[in-house]
Amino acid sequence: MLTFMTVRELYEMACSGSTMETDQIEYAQLQGWVRTNRNNGSIGFIELNDGTYFRNAQLVYSSDLANFQDVSKYLTGTALTVTGKVVLTPQAKQPFELQVTEVILEGACDNSYPLQKKRHSFEYLREIGHLRPRSNTFNAVFRVRSVLAMAIHEFFQDQGFVYVNAPIITGNDAEGAGEVFTVTTREDGNYEEDFFGKKANLTVSGQLQAEAFAMAFRDVYTFGPTFRAENSNTTTHASEFWMVEPEIAFADLEDDMDLIEDMIKYCIQYVMDNCPEEMKFFNQFIDNTLLDRLNHVLNSEFVRMPYTEAIDHLLKATKKFENPVSWGMDLNTEHERYLCEEIVKGPVFLIDYPKDIKAFYMRINADGKTVAACDLLVPAVGELVGGSQREERLDVLQNRMKEMGVHEEGLQWYLDLRRYGGCQHAGFGLGFERFIMYVTGMQNIRDVIPFARTPKNLLF
Amino acid sequence: MLTFMTVRELYEMACSGSTMETDQIEYAQLQGWVRTNRNNGSIGFIELNDGTYFRNAQLVYSSDLANFQDVSKYLTGTALTVTGKVVLTPQAKQPFELQVTEVILEGACDNSYPLQKKRHSFEYLREIGHLRPRSNTFNAVFRVRSVLAMAIHEFFQDQGFVYVNAPIITGNDAEGAGEVFTVTTREDGNYEEDFFGKKANLTVSGQLQAEAFAMAFRDVYTFGPTFRAENSNTTTHASEFWMVEPEIAFADLEDDMDLIEDMIKYCIQYVMDNCPEEMKFFNQFIDNTLLDRLNHVLNSEFVRMPYTEAIDHLLKATKKFENPVSWGMDLNTEHERYLCEEIVKGPVFLIDYPKDIKAFYMRINADGKTVAACDLLVPAVGELVGGSQREERLDVLQNRMKEMGVHEEGLQWYLDLRRYGGCQHAGFGLGFERFIMYVTGMQNIRDVIPFARTPKNLLF
Repeated sequence: MLTFMTVRELYEMACSGSTMETDQIEYAQLQGWVRTNRNNGSIGFIELNDGTYFRNAQLVYSSDLANFQDVSKYLTGTALTVTGKVVLTPQAKQPFELQVTEVILEGACDNSYPLQKKRHSFEYLREIGHLRPRSNTFNAVFRVRSVLAMAIHEFFQDQGFVYVNAPIITGNDAEGAGEVFTVTTREDGNYEEDFFGKKANLTVSGQLQAEAFAMAFRDVYTFGPTFRAENSNTTTHASEFWMVEPEIAFADLEDDMDLIEDMIKYCIQYVMDNCPEEMKFFNQFIDNTLLDRLNHVLNSEFVRMPYTEAIDHLLKATKKFENPVSWGMDLNTEHERYLCEEIVKGPVFLIDYPKDIKAFYMRINADGKTVAACDLLVPAVGELVGGSQREERLDVLQNRMKEMGVHEEGLQWYLDLRRYGGCQHAGFGLGFERFIMYVTGMQNIRDVIPFARTPKNLLF
Repeated sequence: MLTFMTVRELYEMACSGSTMETDQIEYAQLQGWVRTNRNNGSIGFIELNDGTYFRNAQLVYSSDLANFQDVSKYLTGTALTVTGKVVLTPQAKQPFELQVTEVILEGACDNSYPLQKKRHSFEYLREIGHLRPRSNTFNAVFRVRSVLAMAIHEFFQDQGFVYVNAPIITGNDAEGAGEVFTVTTREDGNYEEDFFGKKANLTVSGQLQAEAFAMAFRDVYTFGPTFRAENSNTTTHASEFWMVEPEIAFADLEDDMDLIEDMIKYCIQYVMDNCPEEMKFFNQFIDNTLLDRLNHVLNSEFVRMPYTEAIDHLLKATKKFENPVSWGMDLNTEHERYLCEEIVKGPVFLIDYPKDIKAFYMRINADGKTVAACDLLVPAVGELVGGSQREERLDVLQNRMKEMGVHEEGLQWYLDLRRYGGCQHAGFGLGFERFIMYVTGMQNIRDVIPFARTPKNLLF
């Protein structure tokens, strides 16, 4: 019997150990792309990838094949439809092979194909971003990206969180969080005559709008693109990136940290369960401490440490830091990594940061000096998540805005959330790309975004 | 025993018929917002909504309560923490009530609260977009929006589709599909000196980039925001809206339509299963033909009809149309609705449209006049989905681009997809907001977007 199958299905069947199914599937038809093709004149081998699975199917063809001469010349990248007999090969490296009876050419590929069977640099592959998902590394990266996105949705939806699409075009700049892109239909900066009748920009955060929805649904989350017009060329900055911003009502900073810890663990476990081949690949070729590190996180209880205590540890450290340490400073990655890698030896929440280095909406602690903020620091990366309890007291919030030069105009709606049945609430922001980098070991944010946008770079 | 519970959990428990659980949960603590509060001096009733469930919990309190006088004055919108005894009331309208033993004020609300217990117009509620999710209608709309988004992710991920985040900022304008927003950090239109070193705009579609990923993963989908700078104030146009754009390799138009039909049915069923209270509400207060219509769709096989046959039906119609009918025209909503409501009496795919009214990437049929496109028309709405098989033949595609004035410059990467192992493939676009409108019966796109963006309108 002839069955249309995917490479994933064939692997699942071959590895299930069930012979019943394979008895029924004698002949299978596959469609995919040639990764390699070699032959000795009478017998040939094609590694075929069909995009459904990280590994390839091994096709064996012989000179019995009517179009053997043509088939033996198909180059890497060629698209084929192939029929053949499924033979289990439990002794071999791959669990099955397809003994080919028919090969149909779907799309040719000549030797100008930029993606040859050899190791290409990530820099080179960025220039052919439309082809790089066909390479092993990027195939693995972008499948993990997809699976991790699903993990996030499942984690929140299973607990009844409502998914909110915060607006992308906005008149607010949220937290004054750096430079923003203008959205316009004009070339003269006359925003009063512009499409929206005022200056519009791309959002830097959906948090404030998410807070409004948390006051209706209790638990909500955003998951969408955010933007920064920062002119910095580093491995961790992109102009366009996706953020997850949950917001929970009737909750304090402790609840917030519990949620963050649960989410991180759930998502890591989910990717390990659903992308075992990809994770093996990353551990072998990208970062051979990866699986140990992630397993360690799964089995750790995340420590919670006040900022003030962290500063004490840093001041006492024998290690020499590039940036000098003092209370009130914003920590650098070197400090963050020292704290989680050397002091805690695992993930750590720093809490209760000095108010002057944090945003206006964070709740002032009883000491008057610190805010109920938490940053999750993890080994090898540093900050992964930033969260806080939000200031729900109207008068305290208004004073704080005045202190920090945040204008009430345009934020009356945000203050309304405190005027009308406001309550304790908290939330956090997870940079999705940073999380992908953390889970895959990839070192450059350009390599975890399908088509990355950075200064002077707008390909595709 | 005292248990913290949500209103949803209490409803699920009370409606499950299991007395075992209720025996264990004698006392429950709830947190939420007052919807109504009335009393006769000795006994009072609060309808409390906590955002987890469409329906309210009924709280009963008496003058035995220490703060009875205060509680009896709490107005609509007030946030409370409430403890009480759970009593099943199978004879009453609501399946349980909470006999209150303690009420703690979390956040006050005075009578300036703009959302009083009365029917407000949708126009008015748009102006208080930060509060409207607390109203019945918008609470239902935005929960359905969230659940429908999850339905889409589950539908595709369960079949192994890879989720692709197509770029939001782009240098292409995809299909020349109308006016675009410019993204800039300047006010003088000097794009060479701009952030990206060239003119950048907000995407109108992620399809072209999705095609690149389909050539690596076989089956992919996008789900993200897209933008149009069209200066039109209608009930169906917004400047910012979310699109789902699947793309499948080794597939033709028939496969595409199968996928669309499966997706529509899966998502409708999913929302009916997961939002029964909300759907009942829409059917009662928004559109009393809604459930019948959706059930009809679930049980219909979607008809497939060539455009040319559809024109024949329209020409023969006794009904008078505002827009005259002739072969080659783009259909208007009146024609689309006539076809599905009067001729087919159910959902219908129109296929094989004249090439001159469709985009450059659609595959030319053997007749040389039409393209392998499909639009799904549904009763009461008209077009819900637009799809097509893509032109995979490089020379045909290049000719078509020349004919239609689409420049190859900047799209060489797209042509590469045909040069290097291209294959038959197809895809479609679903306007997410239009789908929400279809599933809820809501008539204005502004009422299904958390914070809608339209000309001269950029609140929140």
